[in-house]
Amino acid sequence: MATPKTDNNKIKQRDFIALARLISGIENLDEQALGLADELYLEPKYSHVIGITGLPGAGKSTLVNQLISHLVKADKTIAVLAIDPTSPFTGGAVLGDRIRYHGSEKSEGKVFFRSMASRGHRGGISNATADILHVFNAARFDFVIVETVGAGQLEVDIAYLTDTLVNVLTPEAGDDIQAIKAGIMEIGDIFVINKSDLPGADRKQAQLQMMLADVKLQSSEEQTWQIPVLKTKAENGEGIVELLKMITSHTQVQSPQKQSGRIQREILDCIHCRLSTITDRSNDPEWWNQARLLVADRKITPHQAAQLFLQTHKFGLPDKQ
Amino acid sequence: MATPKTDNNKIKQRDFIALARLISGIENLDEQALGLADELYLEPKYSHVIGITGLPGAGKSTLVNQLISHLVKADKTIAVLAIDPTSPFTGGAVLGDRIRYHGSEKSEGKVFFRSMASRGHRGGISNATADILHVFNAARFDFVIVETVGAGQLEVDIAYLTDTLVNVLTPEAGDDIQAIKAGIMEIGDIFVINKSDLPGADRKQAQLQMMLADVKLQSSEEQTWQIPVLKTKAENGEGIVELLKMITSHTQVQSPQKQSGRIQREILDCIHCRLSTITDRSNDPEWWNQARLLVADRKITPHQAAQLFLQTHKFGLPDKQ
Repeated sequence: MATPKTDNNKIKQRDFIALARLISGIENLDEQALGLADELYLEPKYSHVIGITGLPGAGKSTLVNQLISHLVKADKTIAVLAIDPTSPFTGGAVLGDRIRYHGSEKSEGKVFFRSMASRGHRGGISNATADILHVFNAARFDFVIVETVGAGQLEVDIAYLTDTLVNVLTPEAGDDIQAIKAGIMEIGDIFVINKSDLPGADRKQAQLQMMLADVKLQSSEEQTWQIPVLKTKAENGEGIVELLKMITSHTQVQSPQKQSGRIQREILDCIHCRLSTITDRSNDPEWWNQARLLVADRKITPHQAAQLFLQTHKFGLPDKQ
Repeated sequence: MATPKTDNNKIKQRDFIALARLISGIENLDEQALGLADELYLEPKYSHVIGITGLPGAGKSTLVNQLISHLVKADKTIAVLAIDPTSPFTGGAVLGDRIRYHGSEKSEGKVFFRSMASRGHRGGISNATADILHVFNAARFDFVIVETVGAGQLEVDIAYLTDTLVNVLTPEAGDDIQAIKAGIMEIGDIFVINKSDLPGADRKQAQLQMMLADVKLQSSEEQTWQIPVLKTKAENGEGIVELLKMITSHTQVQSPQKQSGRIQREILDCIHCRLSTITDRSNDPEWWNQARLLVADRKITPHQAAQLFLQTHKFGLPDKQ
């Protein structure tokens, strides 16, 4: 077995096998892996983290492939983390049929790809994502792309981990704008209308620009960022160069406040994860059998059962508030 | 001030003002309200809880209005809980423009409507929902309808609180089927293709039936439930009678296993909520300022900060695992 130090040196040398192994360890909540990842947090900030979000069918994967292809040509290194929801019925990821970047000779050793299931994740998906992003940063990838499928709490939780959030829409459905208005989907730093050859692209662009006119993101005391609305056709690469330029200019306007809020959320996530892990580990089937029966018979309430659990499993509560 | 006992009697008498007040208390994490709601859990199971889910724009609200209208005619009492995502930018719910059931004379005192924001909910939305459903049950509403907007972790968390989950799709977009396949949207006990006059309804019905052919939900040792795919046109009420019949027949096939799993999840939710509430309350701005700076400067890691938090705020961890 490699010692921790060796492994972390391999990570810093961007060794793909060591990376894959460490990430699996993080996913499996392996103590040693979590310890290594935590150590790597102390490396200076290097990677620019791009989040790609949008409803299913928006063409996010194709867009990601195009971004990778352009970045490889520019001699950049890229790590991709695709967060796949898995079906409770098939138990597997459904993204196998999607086009994935098949490395060219030029890309060898430059593009690291990893997908991760978002459901049934014991340790909390945003916690694992944060740890993995620290690992990628320590491996000094120029760009890290986090692709999330769907819209929902997951996106909200992961959005705060990215430097630049790109929200991918299509001209077709009105569902995406409704989801943004409803706060189901994060607003994003950059909007993209993909499949822009379809009818309605210009109308949607205008609609979004109007909606965003009042939303100027304060990025620092002097700077504000006017959220742009770009059109792309990921299928043939149209608009990708413009999108990359916009992502690069967004790098320049990272705000210290955003950074500070992000850190607070990450610490809070770690606190909650730590507490959840403890409750999940206190696996006591006999206790649970009894509790389930008592609650089912309405002898005690779920809250009383929760209180009993915390008492039985010796959680000391704070002495005073 | 009314004593707890009085208030709970008012709830059992289905007093709308007492109901509204108690639910507000639950939302605000008011200790007394939470205690009252908890007491009400001990009332026997009465209400049939119907969940209505689907992507934005599927026509869920119109469908809910139709269901209410039919149930009122059948002399039933109904409580509706609409879980509205609120935008982080407007700060308000966006559902104001949607058609809402405007009671007829006949419906007076029979239909209780409440909406609840899903974002920024300190105590955990699924926890509050569970408590509110217990209150509705104690008030002996014949039917409780929980309507959730969007697809995501929220639906997954709330699905387990319903007896019958109705998943509303439209003939138009392929997004909904993709979301189900991806496990973003729960599979549901009943599928509805709403707006069934639009082209593609029959094709979508066939597509879904094929997809669901292998998914027989084991509802008890003897019984299985073959998930039906119905067509509705909520706008003019087409198919609503059939949907209600299907919901009623699903009442007959509730499984004890499902019930037991649901109770376990509800207890776990209460445990996590209790722990989160404690961490959130230990609000210590000075500690947080220092921690944020140390983490921002990469002097300590977020996990180390989390550990420090738990030590500083005197969380006793279990003596041994």
